[in-house]
Parts: sequence; structure tokens; C-alpha cells
Amino acid sequence: MEEQNMGGEPVADRRRFLMGMAMTAAGTMSAPALAQSTSGGAAPDPHQGHKMPPPPDTPVMALLVHPKMVMQDLIGPLTVFNLMRGSQIHLVWKDKQPVTTELGITVAPTTTFADCPQDVDVLFVPGGLDGTIALMDDPEVLAFLADRGSRAKYVTADCTGSLLLGAAGLLRGYRATSHWMVRDELRSMGAIPVHERVVIDRNRITGGGVTAGIDFGLTICALMRGEAAAQNIQLVIEYAPAPPFNAGTPETAPPDIVNTLLSRRGGTIERARVKAQAAGAKF
Amino acid sequence: MEEQNMGGEPVADRRRFLMGMAMTAAGTMSAPALAQSTSGGAAPDPHQGHKMPPPPDTPVMALLVHPKMVMQDLIGPLTVFNLMRGSQIHLVWKDKQPVTTELGITVAPTTTFADCPQDVDVLFVPGGLDGTIALMDDPEVLAFLADRGSRAKYVTADCTGSLLLGAAGLLRGYRATSHWMVRDELRSMGAIPVHERVVIDRNRITGGGVTAGIDFGLTICALMRGEAAAQNIQLVIEYAPAPPFNAGTPETAPPDIVNTLLSRRGGTIERARVKAQAAGAKF
Repeated sequence: MEEQNMGGEPVADRRRFLMGMAMTAAGTMSAPALAQSTSGGAAPDPHQGHKMPPPPDTPVMALLVHPKMVMQDLIGPLTVFNLMRGSQIHLVWKDKQPVTTELGITVAPTTTFADCPQDVDVLFVPGGLDGTIALMDDPEVLAFLADRGSRAKYVTADCTGSLLLGAAGLLRGYRATSHWMVRDELRSMGAIPVHERVVIDRNRITGGGVTAGIDFGLTICALMRGEAAAQNIQLVIEYAPAPPFNAGTPETAPPDIVNTLLSRRGGTIERARVKAQAAGAKF
Repeated sequence: MEEQNMGGEPVADRRRFLMGMAMTAAGTMSAPALAQSTSGGAAPDPHQGHKMPPPPDTPVMALLVHPKMVMQDLIGPLTVFNLMRGSQIHLVWKDKQPVTTELGITVAPTTTFADCPQDVDVLFVPGGLDGTIALMDDPEVLAFLADRGSRAKYVTADCTGSLLLGAAGLLRGYRATSHWMVRDELRSMGAIPVHERVVIDRNRITGGGVTAGIDFGLTICALMRGEAAAQNIQLVIEYAPAPPFNAGTPETAPPDIVNTLLSRRGGTIERARVKAQAAGAKF
């Protein structure tokens, strides 16, 4: 929900540092956080403020967007980040062509790798199993992540996004998590797989599969802004979950459901394993 | 996550009844569920299959999308619906112009009100406080909801979307919930406000604020497909939430945070109250 709508912190400070402003059909400003084109990236954006450095108290967040990304992996954290006062949020990709998520909804990158600020406070990678695996040996993506990750204040991912951090060499020696199906593959890339909802090891912060992005986002907010800020956002988004079943992990789901799923996805998991081993062999 | 990617049910059956197919740059098919244009609604879609009725076992879901919609309100349920085998999902609005969400990310409607199937299995309305309030006296939106809602198998909403169901006269005499800030306003429109995460009263199903859409989506899936199907999807999206704080409701959040938020949003809540009373006065 929009900050003005649902009670996030005032956005006046942040708006000064927008990189692009989405205008609704009625001409009113919307979308305070994102440097976002509303026209699928086609229209030139006169507000390319990436040349205007943010003030020191404006956290710069670079969120990778990529083809076959799982939309919820992005939207969970982004919903929280968008309610954090003063954030400068970049949706980064190789170019500005909209990427198609698993839902068919497209997301237009706001910032290319080349234009992304050199120093970011948060580097974040969402998941999307096959889409993520496809990028585990993509030199351009790995070089971008390795570079920004080498200086970022927080190097983060949710779901299978951690496979990309791992392939970029950013998790060596760090405790980390991922989607439960491929969590163990992190080990091939030098990480220590941990079965927790959100794993914090120094400045590496990773979340579990898909819906863990909400817990992850609130954790990031608390680290950067304090507990009260995170609690305020939790209340705005009414995050008091009540799952109708207790089947969210392989440990609690009915065994036949777990086994069927693992069987069905065996090929994909195997591809992740091979790519993780190949990535780890390069370090 | 895409069904092929993360282990949802096979999609072959569903694909035969797609209303539109999004093609990635590489030419591979993506986005099985949505009748979705990848180009911001600009390109004509040769697969406008709304003239092809789905087979009897293909549930038809009409999800309203609207300006200032809260993205998470849509994406939570849609992530679940997309993993339900064979669903035919329509993102409906007055026209096909992309609507801008609170995040600045745009969503292209796939289906206009005029082209939406007359009989839908699920009618769903996401929230977005100010955006929702703005529509509470929009004759075109209310007429569409009242018409499809009069025949829909399930009439549903999450977050402030229930204000629109209420304004359309669809909640009179029904127990229902909404975002906690405006839940009580449902009473003016003849509903019985209930403080539960997901409220089921006959065929009216409503969820609480923003993140409740995930619990809501799994509930719908269980009703339509059975518990095992919902548990399978819960496992795929690793929905084992672990909020870092217990501040997701006004009952559990620190009182100063609740009071500050209510104070800041007082004007908006008052506008919802006035519009709800005006809507109720018409019944």
C-alpha cells in the first residue's frame, strides 16, 4: 500500500531523490519509491536522477529483476522496502526491457547494470527456480552481483536468489538459506546451508522460499531502521499470518505430498546441483 | 513460481484454454495462467480466447485490478491461483490500459468488464485503501461487481477490496472482514464485521489486510480443490511464516504505533466511513 494511503512514514524526503516518477492517467504522482516507467520501458524518462547522488541518509537498494522471476519473491520484500521512508529503490537488470515473471505479469527494470549506483546499501536477489538456474553461469549477471556485492552494506536474497549470490562467490564461508528444494546446493558454492526462515550471518541475509520474503523484508527493515519501524510496517500490512494448514515445510507437510513434489522436480533440482558444483569449482 | 518450475500440478490441460499467451523474448511460452500482454497492453493479442468457453472443469477466475491497487493484495492470491491446475484467470478492469499499483509497478488488465465471462467461479477484489475508496461510488465498477457477483460461485476479496463488495451490495447479511483500519465500516453496508484472518460465510470469502491474501488464497484452493491441493501449494511457496515481531494486528502491536498510525490515517478512514454510509443508504 502506498505510504500516503496506509500510514507509512512521510515520503516528502524520499520524493526529492526519485529517479523516475510514474504518473497516473489523471496526472497525479504515484509510486513514490520506484524509478519506474509505466509504459513498459518504452518512454524516455526525463527524471534520470541516477546522476544525482542520494543524501547520506537515503539507503540505496538494488533489487535484481530477471526473466522467470517469481513475482511474490520480489513483491514481499518490495512491499516492505516501499514503506521504508527515504529508500531509493532500483529494479536492476541488463537492460530496461520488461522481464516476464512466472505469473505472466511483466516488471520493467528501472535501472541497467551499467547505471546502477556503484555503492548500494542493499543488494537483493529474488528467486524463480528455473529462471535462477539459467543465470547461475551468466557472466554479466555474476559480474554485476560480485561487484556490487563486494561493497554493499547488506548482500541479500530470498528463495532461490541465494543460488545466484552463491554462484557469484558471495556466500563463501557464510551461513545462508534458500528454497527448501535446493538449499543444500549452496554447500557446493562454499556456503553453510541453514534451515531457518531468515538467516543473518554478518552482512549476508537470506530468506527461505517465496513467502519468506515478507519475514526477510521486515528483518532488513528492523536492521536498518530499528524494531519500531518494522513493527509499524508489519501493522500496516497486517502481517499476522494464519496458514490454514501446516504444510509449509517438508518437515511438516504430508510425506506423500513432499515425495511427489520432489519426484516431479527432480530434474530441476539436479540441474541446480550441476550448476552449483560448476560454479563452486571456479572459486 | 511457474508450475513447471516449482512443482505445481501439470499445466497441459490448462494451457489449452489460455486466453492469451505471453511470449518471452526467446520465444518460449511463459505465464500459463494469465491472458496477459507483455507489452503494457499495447500489442493486439491474437489469442483472445474469451470467445472460447472453458470446459466445465476449468474454473474461471475474475480478479479485479484497479489504480492504486496494493500489489501484494493481488500477488498473494494470484500466486496460489496460478498454481491451481486448469484455472482460467482474468485480470479485469474497465479497459486494457495498465493500472499503476502502489509500488509503481504496472499491471496490464487481460480482460475488460465487457469481455469478462458472464459466469465466473471466483470473483476477487484486491484492496488499496485510497484507490478502493475512490471506487466505492463508481457506477461502472459497482455494476460489474454486482452483476458477476450475483452469479459467481465464490464472491471474494482481501484487504480493503471488501469495501467494494460491500458498496456493490454483495455483503448484506454476510459476515466479512477487511483491513483492520476500516473493517468496522462494512457494517454501514449491511455486513457483519468479523475479526478473523479469513472469513467464510456461505459463498462470501474475505481476507484481512494485505498479507492475509496468502491465507485467503490457500483457503480458496482448499475449498475448490481439497486440502491436499492446498497443502501442495503451501509447500511449493514454503508458507511457514515466522514474523520477526508480533505487531501484525492492533491488538498485538505496541499501542503507540497503533495510535500514531490511526492518527496519521484518520482522514482516509473518515472518507471510507462517509462513502460506506452513502453506499449503504442506497440499499
